[in-house]
Amino acid sequence: MPKQPVVTPRAQDFPRWYQDVIAKAELADNGPVRGTMVIRPYGWAIWERMQAAMDARIKAAGAENCYLPLFIPESYLSREAEHVEGFSPELAVVTHAGGKDLEEPVVVRPTSETVFGEFMAKWVTSHRDLPLLLNQWANVVRWEMRPRVFLRTSEFLWQEGHTAHATEADASAYARRILHEVYADFMRTELAMPVLAGRKTKRERFAGATNTMTLEAMMGDGKALQMGTSHELGQNFARAFDIGFTDVDQQRQLAWTTSWGTSTRMVGGLIMCHGDDAGLRIPPRLAATQALVTIVKSAPEVDSTAAQLVSELAAAGVRVRLDDRVDTPYGRRAVDAELKGIPVRVEVGPRDLADGQVTLVRRVPGSKEPVRVGEVAQQVVSALAADHQALYDEALQRRDAATVDAGSVDEAVDAAQTGWARLPWKLLGDEGEARIAGQGITVRCLVVPDADVEGGYRVPDTDDVAVEPELTAIVARAY
Amino acid sequence: MPKQPVVTPRAQDFPRWYQDVIAKAELADNGPVRGTMVIRPYGWAIWERMQAAMDARIKAAGAENCYLPLFIPESYLSREAEHVEGFSPELAVVTHAGGKDLEEPVVVRPTSETVFGEFMAKWVTSHRDLPLLLNQWANVVRWEMRPRVFLRTSEFLWQEGHTAHATEADASAYARRILHEVYADFMRTELAMPVLAGRKTKRERFAGATNTMTLEAMMGDGKALQMGTSHELGQNFARAFDIGFTDVDQQRQLAWTTSWGTSTRMVGGLIMCHGDDAGLRIPPRLAATQALVTIVKSAPEVDSTAAQLVSELAAAGVRVRLDDRVDTPYGRRAVDAELKGIPVRVEVGPRDLADGQVTLVRRVPGSKEPVRVGEVAQQVVSALAADHQALYDEALQRRDAATVDAGSVDEAVDAAQTGWARLPWKLLGDEGEARIAGQGITVRCLVVPDADVEGGYRVPDTDDVAVEPELTAIVARAY
Repeated sequence: MPKQPVVTPRAQDFPRWYQDVIAKAELADNGPVRGTMVIRPYGWAIWERMQAAMDARIKAAGAENCYLPLFIPESYLSREAEHVEGFSPELAVVTHAGGKDLEEPVVVRPTSETVFGEFMAKWVTSHRDLPLLLNQWANVVRWEMRPRVFLRTSEFLWQEGHTAHATEADASAYARRILHEVYADFMRTELAMPVLAGRKTKRERFAGATNTMTLEAMMGDGKALQMGTSHELGQNFARAFDIGFTDVDQQRQLAWTTSWGTSTRMVGGLIMCHGDDAGLRIPPRLAATQALVTIVKSAPEVDSTAAQLVSELAAAGVRVRLDDRVDTPYGRRAVDAELKGIPVRVEVGPRDLADGQVTLVRRVPGSKEPVRVGEVAQQVVSALAADHQALYDEALQRRDAATVDAGSVDEAVDAAQTGWARLPWKLLGDEGEARIAGQGITVRCLVVPDADVEGGYRVPDTDDVAVEPELTAIVARAY
Repeated sequence: MPKQPVVTPRAQDFPRWYQDVIAKAELADNGPVRGTMVIRPYGWAIWERMQAAMDARIKAAGAENCYLPLFIPESYLSREAEHVEGFSPELAVVTHAGGKDLEEPVVVRPTSETVFGEFMAKWVTSHRDLPLLLNQWANVVRWEMRPRVFLRTSEFLWQEGHTAHATEADASAYARRILHEVYADFMRTELAMPVLAGRKTKRERFAGATNTMTLEAMMGDGKALQMGTSHELGQNFARAFDIGFTDVDQQRQLAWTTSWGTSTRMVGGLIMCHGDDAGLRIPPRLAATQALVTIVKSAPEVDSTAAQLVSELAAAGVRVRLDDRVDTPYGRRAVDAELKGIPVRVEVGPRDLADGQVTLVRRVPGSKEPVRVGEVAQQVVSALAADHQALYDEALQRRDAATVDAGSVDEAVDAAQTGWARLPWKLLGDEGEARIAGQGITVRCLVVPDADVEGGYRVPDTDDVAVEPELTAIVARAY
């Protein structure tokens, strides 16, 4: 009888594989209200560590955290015309509160953009107040017709940064700093995910922005996922909310603003980028539990060795946990650890121990080898470093192998069935983009070949082929 | 001409003093929707550090974080009869979303109690799944008719713990562990606030609880503030949501649950406990900036000494920041630092420096003394430790001085005009409690004298004077 797979194989049904992993690794459940999610402790631990690592980078970039209210007067949203158009169909509205109908209904924030606009206008008066660099961690609501846990939920958690600057150049530089030094660095260094930085086309731009930059990652099925965006808003929001300042010459000026965000969607991206047919694979730097010391079968020496290894690993800076649930069959515990993607297991059993050994099981290479008890800490530390790199390399190779240089729109559309295509933007343009959108294929971003940049492409400052003849569209299906 | 006070003096108008401090120390603003607040970066930094210190203790008590949805079906709330009665008048209801009217309106969570109930029922099947110890950091909404920033806002931030246990004894012990080891320890150790632990009367108990325990602190005006609560819910919620398990004998049993919470209200408590007529006083362990190295007047040696002191202080583990805004008058910067309650300032100016000295300004004692440059780090470290203790001692002395042992209800009512009263519970009882409530005076908690307990009082296990004849009511006005 063939062994029953623990989760649906990816090749058979990728969306079902995704749902299976989320359920069986105990990451999340669907919430009682359609489109909402319950993030379970194991899933939350992933988000919590993402938050901490991202927050440290945001602070290092000089931004300060604050918190704006959940409820927004409807009138705020309509001040920036494109902004309200972008969000109208997704809004949730409170019409009844405190036991009676509200005179003016309030909107549950789809983003705090407009409230930041309003308050930045209050807080900024002089050029001395600039740049004003703010960030918020919060929940936001955008009613979803086709929800999918972590990827598209009616409520999601995110950080949204909002900054005001005295000059366009300063705003522009800061939006790029967030894109590269904060977001891309976090994704590569902590999530072990290769991300491509590019510029959104007009069609895909954030409502109200003059420029949206994005980081795109390839998932296990060849589709793209937008992992984060950084927007230049020009003076649009500053004008709508009157964010002004007196410059050094005592002249009144409008500020230049930016906004940027990443969300719990990254958890979905992590799953779909690194997961395999045995379940999750958590990048070692992100894992709440990096090493699980497993008592295969209890015995006095087994128990004491396991305890000793736990303290040695903790002393070596490894986040370690003991699995002594010997009343649960060993096989089930092993499957559970695989499902949850714990990077390393140290299995301690009587037979190995008689030879002075334990077994080191590594999730990423899928290896299983004996290690002398005295060498465990050192071996685990080097395995964690190697496996972070291995995950990154594997994802990068998959992306490169599934990316095609297309010479025509048809070729690009073909390639987008299984991966990404690079297509000269001049062969596509706004019209071509609208046409392929009908087939569910979008321009993920525009890039420009540049041998001096790591990865070989840079983020263009324009979408005009007259200025940048080598503008290249990354074309794909996307989540 | 008398010096104009920076904030309204407390003795003149305490509520206005509170508002002035919040505005001038840039802690928060009123949000655009009535009853909501905008927490500014300086206020947020306080909450963020509170969260981190509390979260570490919650994790040490074995609870895991998770996240439940903002939106709750209305039907959930009505499952526990007392619970829905408790919240009905405060609910905010979304009736319109995604461009149309909802078939079933959804409630914005006033607490996630009921959703925890629903999902714990799914997650618990066997005694092996118990205890289940969960916590969530989230925003909740309770529509406020008389809002006051941080103390009573329509939206506030909090943590809510929810646990399920196999036995009443285990649930009871855990609710007490949270009260003492997590909450009281956090408030004393991090916030430098003396808190009195006690039991709520039936009247003041959380809707649906069998026992509510509380931590009460005295504010600068003698009123009480409830800083946190821990509830035993008996089997009420387990019955309503069917949280059951099979015990070791394969018998189906109902679980025993607890819940416990603390919120952004603690920020208000911190302000009103430690603040003085010059503004905030932040307890040193909580302060995001513990020491501010201030360049009084720029000069090459001043600037280099200041930079050197910043690195020495950082190396000594002090959270230090440089104030080199020499284009802002020194006096204004000093007033701002006082307002914000930064524990220690190290003022570096040319005159002192000529003698090899700088000036150490301590916010808590209000002292100002010369210190030799080489001794700054050591002096600051010991000042921070001493000033934490001084804040705690001052608050405790104020509370003790303003607490009266009352021999009658009239005496207690009198005492509650300016502070707290201790009154034998048998002299008051349910009826007496209802009567004084008409005068705005409440029983904050019941305690029992016990010389073996630090502080001299323990938390009673009952509100029955027949069982505990020495039951003592703490009677006060409260926020």
